[in-house]
Amino acid sequence: MIDSRATLVNGVPGAQVSAFDRGLHYGDGLFETLRCEQGRVRWFDRHLARLGAGCMRLGIAMPDSALLRSEVEAAVAEAGMERALVKIIVTRGESRRRGYRPGGDERVTRIVSAYPWPGPIGAEFRVGLSPVTLGSNPQLAGIKHLNRLEQVLAQRAAAAAGLHEVLMRSERGEVVCGSMSNVYLWQERELLTPGLADCGVAGIVRALVLELAPRLGLAVRTGRVSVAQLADARAIIVSNVRLGLQPVHWYEGRPLEVDVRGARLQELIDGTH
Amino acid sequence: MIDSRATLVNGVPGAQVSAFDRGLHYGDGLFETLRCEQGRVRWFDRHLARLGAGCMRLGIAMPDSALLRSEVEAAVAEAGMERALVKIIVTRGESRRRGYRPGGDERVTRIVSAYPWPGPIGAEFRVGLSPVTLGSNPQLAGIKHLNRLEQVLAQRAAAAAGLHEVLMRSERGEVVCGSMSNVYLWQERELLTPGLADCGVAGIVRALVLELAPRLGLAVRTGRVSVAQLADARAIIVSNVRLGLQPVHWYEGRPLEVDVRGARLQELIDGTH
Repeated sequence: MIDSRATLVNGVPGAQVSAFDRGLHYGDGLFETLRCEQGRVRWFDRHLARLGAGCMRLGIAMPDSALLRSEVEAAVAEAGMERALVKIIVTRGESRRRGYRPGGDERVTRIVSAYPWPGPIGAEFRVGLSPVTLGSNPQLAGIKHLNRLEQVLAQRAAAAAGLHEVLMRSERGEVVCGSMSNVYLWQERELLTPGLADCGVAGIVRALVLELAPRLGLAVRTGRVSVAQLADARAIIVSNVRLGLQPVHWYEGRPLEVDVRGARLQELIDGTH
Repeated sequence: MIDSRATLVNGVPGAQVSAFDRGLHYGDGLFETLRCEQGRVRWFDRHLARLGAGCMRLGIAMPDSALLRSEVEAAVAEAGMERALVKIIVTRGESRRRGYRPGGDERVTRIVSAYPWPGPIGAEFRVGLSPVTLGSNPQLAGIKHLNRLEQVLAQRAAAAAGLHEVLMRSERGEVVCGSMSNVYLWQERELLTPGLADCGVAGIVRALVLELAPRLGLAVRTGRVSVAQLADARAIIVSNVRLGLQPVHWYEGRPLEVDVRGARLQELIDGTH
């Protein structure tokens, strides 16, 4: 459940925002979901770098990093949680006019909320192929912006189907990512993961996988992934900041193997900060 | 400028919403912009029908129509405006959990705001071709949902280029619509307007054009429109609830003609309610 005490809006405790905020009106903003353990914020610099890249792409002024870090720490401390997920939302701010066109004089809105660590996944992580596709737009690809209706619709259908996660295709039919994760197929000597030039989010854990896998003698290839390759895959993993590297036990009704190299890669990821 | 006195959130005067609203977090909702003149709300039933179609598509409970109408009228009365634009935002509501997946137990949020009628456009309506493209997604096409970053980026670039409006292409390169309007090319015996199966919003005025044009002996053809057809067009109009049928005087540096049939079509539209 949400805890409005562990929320700061522009640095002030509270859980209300302006009804004229452009984040609400247009999804005109960005977010990050951070993992906090024993008061330590994991991969803060990486989250900040992605947020900064998103702000640059949208022409939104990036909030001060020391300020954001202090707000994240304050939200976690207020919540008094051993482990938490902290969501940062940054929007272009309250609009003083009607219409899509930014005024240029908006003041950025920051919302920082600590959420309790979610419960365990269960023994079997079940994944399907989503009927909801992803629109392609290179100008929005990779960044974690607030236009997430495709993911909402995908998760809504996933819930109805009793699935933890669903993999999503572009309009062209290529596999891109999960609704809340990146995806990887285990191959003989490499991991294959879709490129993200046209849609999808460039995950923090995905970047760690790309950096660390070579230490295990494992190449990671980014490129096109087809639905047929998924259907033939021996082992699949998905990743995000909450799950880390999550083996998929069941894909579209078919049991999958768990590749032992995943656990070794997870250990390397656990050693980063 | 905005006027928070003329805003109702779930029927209560005020201009604050929950920082946990899914409209803010994911753009998980819909909106309508209505024209009000001398206390009369134009095309209310049409707006309501589109809103209802959007709610159906997203699985959001549609608010009661009499309630929405009374809130629109109250906002306009409070604002004391002769002419106003009223924006209705309907979201899935406040989320009690983190994550894209709807809980199913959210209570819909309604935000109704009256905005002053905008100032005149000026003598020359200048339009360009946007460098920002539209992602395709048939599940989101036609409805007026809150995921509008593409339109924001397009209007941001339009402002920098000194343009009133920009026309947007799909990823495939086909012309779809303006960032805040539908578009039509005048042909010898017909109006040509892009189909909206993959992206774009099914405008209220666009529907009126499709219905009323035959009364002038004018066919309206919906179909593919190429950038080359725009470049060759003799006369172009755009439409939305604020502008009505707006002749384009200048497209990408080229002066256009104003087709007299537009004024006759506008008269027919003015006669509807």
